[in-house]
Amino acid sequence: MNKKDLLKKKIKHIDISEHNVIPLVDAMGDMAFQARNIYRASQIFEMMQKDKDCVVFLTLAGSLISAGLKKTISTLVQNNMVDAIVSTGANIVDQDFFEALGFFHYEGDPFADDNTLREMMIDRIYDTYIDEEDLRICDETVSKICDILDKRPYSSREFIMEMGRYLDDNPQFTESRKDSIVYNCYKKGVPIFCPAFSDSSAGFGLVHHQYHAAEGAKVSIDSAADFLEITKIKIANKESAIFMLGGGVPKNFVQDIVVATEVLEQDAPMHKYAIQITVADERDGGLSGSTLKEASSWGKVETTHEQMVYAEATVAFPLIAGYGYHKSSWKQRQEKRLNRMFEKENALNA
Amino acid sequence: MNKKDLLKKKIKHIDISEHNVIPLVDAMGDMAFQARNIYRASQIFEMMQKDKDCVVFLTLAGSLISAGLKKTISTLVQNNMVDAIVSTGANIVDQDFFEALGFFHYEGDPFADDNTLREMMIDRIYDTYIDEEDLRICDETVSKICDILDKRPYSSREFIMEMGRYLDDNPQFTESRKDSIVYNCYKKGVPIFCPAFSDSSAGFGLVHHQYHAAEGAKVSIDSAADFLEITKIKIANKESAIFMLGGGVPKNFVQDIVVATEVLEQDAPMHKYAIQITVADERDGGLSGSTLKEASSWGKVETTHEQMVYAEATVAFPLIAGYGYHKSSWKQRQEKRLNRMFEKENALNA
Amino acid sequence: MNKKDLLKKKIKHIDISEHNVIPLVDAMGDMAFQARNIYRASQIFEMMQKDKDCVVFLTLAGSLISAGLKKTISTLVQNNMVDAIVSTGANIVDQDFFEALGFFHYEGDPFADDNTLREMMIDRIYDTYIDEEDLRICDETVSKICDILDKRPYSSREFIMEMGRYLDDNPQFTESRKDSIVYNCYKKGVPIFCPAFSDSSAGFGLVHHQYHAAEGAKVSIDSAADFLEITKIKIANKESAIFMLGGGVPKNFVQDIVVATEVLEQDAPMHKYAIQITVADERDGGLSGSTLKEASSWGKVETTHEQMVYAEATVAFPLIAGYGYHKSSWKQRQEKRLNRMFEKENALNA
Amino acid sequence: MNKKDLLKKKIKHIDISEHNVIPLVDAMGDMAFQARNIYRASQIFEMMQKDKDCVVFLTLAGSLISAGLKKTISTLVQNNMVDAIVSTGANIVDQDFFEALGFFHYEGDPFADDNTLREMMIDRIYDTYIDEEDLRICDETVSKICDILDKRPYSSREFIMEMGRYLDDNPQFTESRKDSIVYNCYKKGVPIFCPAFSDSSAGFGLVHHQYHAAEGAKVSIDSAADFLEITKIKIANKESAIFMLGGGVPKNFVQDIVVATEVLEQDAPMHKYAIQITVADERDGGLSGSTLKEASSWGKVETTHEQMVYAEATVAFPLIAGYGYHKSSWKQRQEKRLNRMFEKENALNA
Repeated sequence: MNKKDLLKKKIKHIDISEHNVIPLVDAMGDMAFQARNIYRASQIFEMMQKDKDCVVFLTLAGSLISAGLKKTISTLVQNNMVDAIVSTGANIVDQDFFEALGFFHYEGDPFADDNTLREMMIDRIYDTYIDEEDLRICDETVSKICDILDKRPYSSREFIMEMGRYLDDNPQFTESRKDSIVYNCYKKGVPIFCPAFSDSSAGFGLVHHQYHAAEGAKVSIDSAADFLEITKIKIANKESAIFMLGGGVPKNFVQDIVVATEVLEQDAPMHKYAIQITVADERDGGLSGSTLKEASSWGKVETTHEQMVYAEATVAFPLIAGYGYHKSSWKQRQEKRLNRMFEKENALNA
Repeated sequence: MNKKDLLKKKIKHIDISEHNVIPLVDAMGDMAFQARNIYRASQIFEMMQKDKDCVVFLTLAGSLISAGLKKTISTLVQNNMVDAIVSTGANIVDQDFFEALGFFHYEGDPFADDNTLREMMIDRIYDTYIDEEDLRICDETVSKICDILDKRPYSSREFIMEMGRYLDDNPQFTESRKDSIVYNCYKKGVPIFCPAFSDSSAGFGLVHHQYHAAEGAKVSIDSAADFLEITKIKIANKESAIFMLGGGVPKNFVQDIVVATEVLEQDAPMHKYAIQITVADERDGGLSGSTLKEASSWGKVETTHEQMVYAEATVAFPLIAGYGYHKSSWKQRQEKRLNRMFEKENALNA
Repeated sequence: MNKKDLLKKKIKHIDISEHNVIPLVDAMGDMAFQARNIYRASQIFEMMQKDKDCVVFLTLAGSLISAGLKKTISTLVQNNMVDAIVSTGANIVDQDFFEALGFFHYEGDPFADDNTLREMMIDRIYDTYIDEEDLRICDETVSKICDILDKRPYSSREFIMEMGRYLDDNPQFTESRKDSIVYNCYKKGVPIFCPAFSDSSAGFGLVHHQYHAAEGAKVSIDSAADFLEITKIKIANKESAIFMLGGGVPKNFVQDIVVATEVLEQDAPMHKYAIQITVADERDGGLSGSTLKEASSWGKVETTHEQMVYAEATVAFPLIAGYGYHKSSWKQRQEKRLNRMFEKENALNA
Repeated sequence: MNKKDLLKKKIKHIDISEHNVIPLVDAMGDMAFQARNIYRASQIFEMMQKDKDCVVFLTLAGSLISAGLKKTISTLVQNNMVDAIVSTGANIVDQDFFEALGFFHYEGDPFADDNTLREMMIDRIYDTYIDEEDLRICDETVSKICDILDKRPYSSREFIMEMGRYLDDNPQFTESRKDSIVYNCYKKGVPIFCPAFSDSSAGFGLVHHQYHAAEGAKVSIDSAADFLEITKIKIANKESAIFMLGGGVPKNFVQDIVVATEVLEQDAPMHKYAIQITVADERDGGLSGSTLKEASSWGKVETTHEQMVYAEATVAFPLIAGYGYHKSSWKQRQEKRLNRMFEKENALNA
């Protein structure tokens, strides 16, 4: 087998607009266990959509884009169903931006020999392959963007917006950027936060940039700025909802903004609606699997409308997101274009 | 029940020096499943100790300090058994620094009513309680440290060193800082990286500081600097080993430095030894549960000496760490005081 | 809250004939992780259907009937899509036969206070409630069936056939038996084996019967007879496929019949197709989570067409079963009426 | 590699009497998560030991004997720390009796190629190997025992007692039987129940026997008799405790005896103490992971002294059992020799 044979079947992204799952999910509502939980989460997602003033935060952890969920997320962004995103760096940079540059993920074999793959420069994510050479170009592109930018600290949100602008400015990406989350968020003014931004392909680009840059003339990422910006979104909008895929830093970060508003002596309620899709459990005390009830002891999440769904995202997310899509309540929602908040601010500071 | 009754039984930290687990772990080596894996991981940890030039990275994810593992980690630091730490913010700031300030974690009930706890300002981590009022003081202390510091971007490593200095400078913490990881690492020159630093109590302190600071005169956290610094450690020391508790950002970050050295066109081998203790599995494609074999397809980890241990850290870590401790090979190791690398660098830059 | 308020919302059984999931599952086939595994399992199930001479064994472990999967299974039975069933006693007696008698399962709350439930005689299965008083009537019915029967040892298959006959003979069950697995299998001559038959409501009935019966004049369950009978099915039909929901005794039992044919010095191939839906993993060495590859080391399962699906049955089973149903290859299959094998045998013995 | 090379390193059984884990487990009691749960379970196990009249049931599911836990269990039996055992067939026949015949389990590789293993007649249990040819001799031995016995229905308990007698009668097993559970229980009059007895190597032996036996002159296993016998133990002894390793049929069976006493209109309390070590969780509604609180809704288990330990048995069981052993309260306990109950009964019936 040569490399070409192994990188043959491209991952394709499910299009929730093509599958009206409402009858299926409604039927699940009369069953038990995770089927019923998927239904309950779908109901809460629908409530979020009907609550027009409520800011909906989507959090992304795990290998979601490489697994075929890009278009599902883009569809939510395009239709004002989510207003801000908090993500791991990998989903946004190594996977979404990567595909927007014209590269692909491929179907692979979870039982492949990893030493052989390494020799071929094929990276494996469980049952999915990536061409390491493509990934290096992605790293370099981030480095190139650094070189163009004003040399100052950026929040990850700002930097990701610049990545969107880069995709928008270069017509060669017209086809490949279409379903990109980075690109669609850029066009819709939807902020994307990666609180651990350097923990990704972006990190390689930034390290390359900083390593070669002159002291005092380099782009840096101010991770505290991220936290301040997202907290300002909470303060400005009051009501909020969280839809979490996986746990990790994005989950913690988005829950913490409620506490942060208090620290700033501002008034803002707990998250009003909360859903998490996860395979983790609570028994090791890790944050990823901690229940939403536990989060309510911290004053972060209200317990009235919360639902944990213990399932894998590739299966559960298209059902819940698709349910919300086909219910069409988003047609009553307007775009919030939250990025505008910070443009004004930057203008004032300038 | 009032708050005082609920916050009564303090979590105590297990002292591995008091439990010679060598015979027990050796016996586990002749069994199967996770018992045998604990033995195998212990053997690899022992190899790391004997390989004197090899830098040992310890990564921390999950609620480890609140769970009673602080002293285990401090013991490793004090005896040159680990040379650098990569952690979630929560372990280092909300839990370790928090306790160093004189506060405690308490035994709680996983079935408690969370709304009642919230009213009492008690935060719950599965079966453990925290006094929210204590935590606020921790946030404020970080903010206070920001106010003292020069107003410039810091890597999380630099900032955490300043937290160590703060503990060292204030005699009121003489007792409470004794087993602190932040404090012991400060004294031993062991770098601590928190790539998602603002995703913690530190974030609250920093947000408070930045919110109230004058523009252009504020402390910020440059997360790209973290990545560059840790990569420089890899470049300077060549051989490396990773001992990972949980997955998340710390796992990804420490594995990525091998790739980063390549991006900087430097020569450095894959991690030579690797252990992970985790409850996650590989089937959802998440990084936290991805196998070390998979990491080898990425060119990050060598497969010769690697072991996944599928167990909860409170049980498995004292056994593996204790095995290494009582084997005493660390007596042949010298402190690497890696922080010195950056002091020189800073001096050169000054 | 009184008992009536808690036992209000009945569990309803999803009807796969109403949901054409083919496009959805096909789309999952281009994704990764468990979505792709659901697609692959669906393809293998379809292969089983096309292989007309291949006996399809369905195994049931976990609380499947109480969770709303009864009609899915009955649909498979009615359309010759499965030819024999191996199950835990609970699914067949406490849940399916129970509902066939006219009783129901109810939506409940996983966080309910169990002591309160006990006082009300409500039994809880995670998020599902059962009226303990109804369950006692189910126990008694089994005892009553014992009293009618000839006093001799029965295989569980024989006994369950008698339960089907009881449902068929009593017109009061005309409505409630309609979707019953026990009833439909009786009508279609599909054998049901419960190798741990007394570990169920049937056990209570049998214990009651034996306790009060005169010595030498009692019904007993010969569990070795089960194993012999199912092995004879394998010997008579050669080719076989297994579709496993959960693990446990049914998984082990159905895999073991390949070895049993060898023990009897008969010639029969390994299971040709194999699917398992499970949430268990392989790391504790338990049979429930052991891979189908591992089963092939035992000479039980061929590795050409096998797929593990790591998902919860309420979500994954309707998708895979529904895919097979709507593909319609079963229209080419004929009923195997395997129970007839044993009627003849009994006739010969008589 | 040939077969001999692969079957080289024998699994050895941990000897809890050699490891005084009391200080370690006590230290775990001040920690959190599963460390604390191991401590709490140890305390409850100690309570069981002090409650001299309380019958202690041990249940075994999962591959425990092949994993090196045989001697731990035998030690409990020899010292009157458990009074009755309910198990899967595999643990008792395929693994314990198998080793008592002089065969061994071997350390293997979880990543081995299973097709190669099959060709060599090596069976794999995750990371453990078995010589299939040895296993066949075990099957045949069961068949041989059938041939010697009176041709009538047996409870699994009776049959396993006969297996113990076989080991006792044959001096060639003097060495190999020493730590055998079957043998030690035989000598101590401790009943062993396998409610799914034919789902094991015993099944192969029984099938072989029945297949070749003349009608009406064969040994059969009456699984209802098991349930009646174990229920009689509960009725005769009133107070009871359950220590469960894994879930499955043994867990369900031993919990059900409380309900069975009610069905027989006898008076017996719920199980007074309950521990379960498991890696399963409650979210799929399966019995194996169902909480002990849930069991209390069914009136099976009292909630005062119950503890779930979410850990793998090879790690957690030696700690909890070892704690109980070194606490020495068993020195105050007397052997219950419960098998005697049924000898008398049989004598009366004869």
